[in-house]
Amino acid sequence: MIFIPGQEFNENFKISEKTYNDFINLFKDKNPLHTDEDYAIARGFKSKVMHGNILNGLVSYFIGECLPVKDVIIHSQEIQFKYPVYLNDELQISATVSEVYESVNAVIFKIKFINAENKVVAKGKIQIGLLS
Amino acid sequence: MIFIPGQEFNENFKISEKTYNDFINLFKDKNPLHTDEDYAIARGFKSKVMHGNILNGLVSYFIGECLPVKDVIIHSQEIQFKYPVYLNDELQISATVSEVYESVNAVIFKIKFINAENKVVAKGKIQIGLLS
Repeated sequence: MIFIPGQEFNENFKISEKTYNDFINLFKDKNPLHTDEDYAIARGFKSKVMHGNILNGLVSYFIGECLPVKDVIIHSQEIQFKYPVYLNDELQISATVSEVYESVNAVIFKIKFINAENKVVAKGKIQIGLLS
Repeated sequence: MIFIPGQEFNENFKISEKTYNDFINLFKDKNPLHTDEDYAIARGFKSKVMHGNILNGLVSYFIGECLPVKDVIIHSQEIQFKYPVYLNDELQISATVSEVYESVNAVIFKIKFINAENKVVAKGKIQIGLLS
């Protein structure tokens, strides 16, 4: 088994204007919280809030492209959004191997998204299967 | 409270070539399972498998744009991928209000993604907060 409990994998991302705009063009979520600066500020946010599912798109890339093996498939994932993410935020995904099930070729990662202020803005769990 | 346990909301989507290509261009997940027909078939799939996080992008749209109120924010979400989704699949999101917490303005939905063969390809849970 290539994965061992406690192993850590990290990757850095920036929520760029292009990522934000392309996400809106792709999925059409123009909810005012994400698109209307005044609306978001009136509700206590610093600025318009980035879509949480941009982070899930980054999870796709992280699992599909950044692990030491490519023969993987996501079984399940969960994410809790703890603090808002804003445009141009730089985020680190930090994933730790939490459980390994050799008999069924499955691995569970605990993940955190950490911003430049070292705040965990989101955390979650991802179960992947290893394909042979 | 606008939401009542048992209420159901449905929406239909198609995983079009454009959605698939735009997702890859946006998040750069070109894992062979998603992009290499022969690779996917050799591993027992009918064809290349669509990224599970395309479904999470649809969740963003569904919550942000399809509910009877726009003043919402996603607190957390989870999804289990039960069966593969393929290019051009037509999916219905079916969301049922499962729990309502009036004191903290939170609502939990159970969701299912159902394909044209009436198979539940993915299911999950979404907690939203209602913004005032």
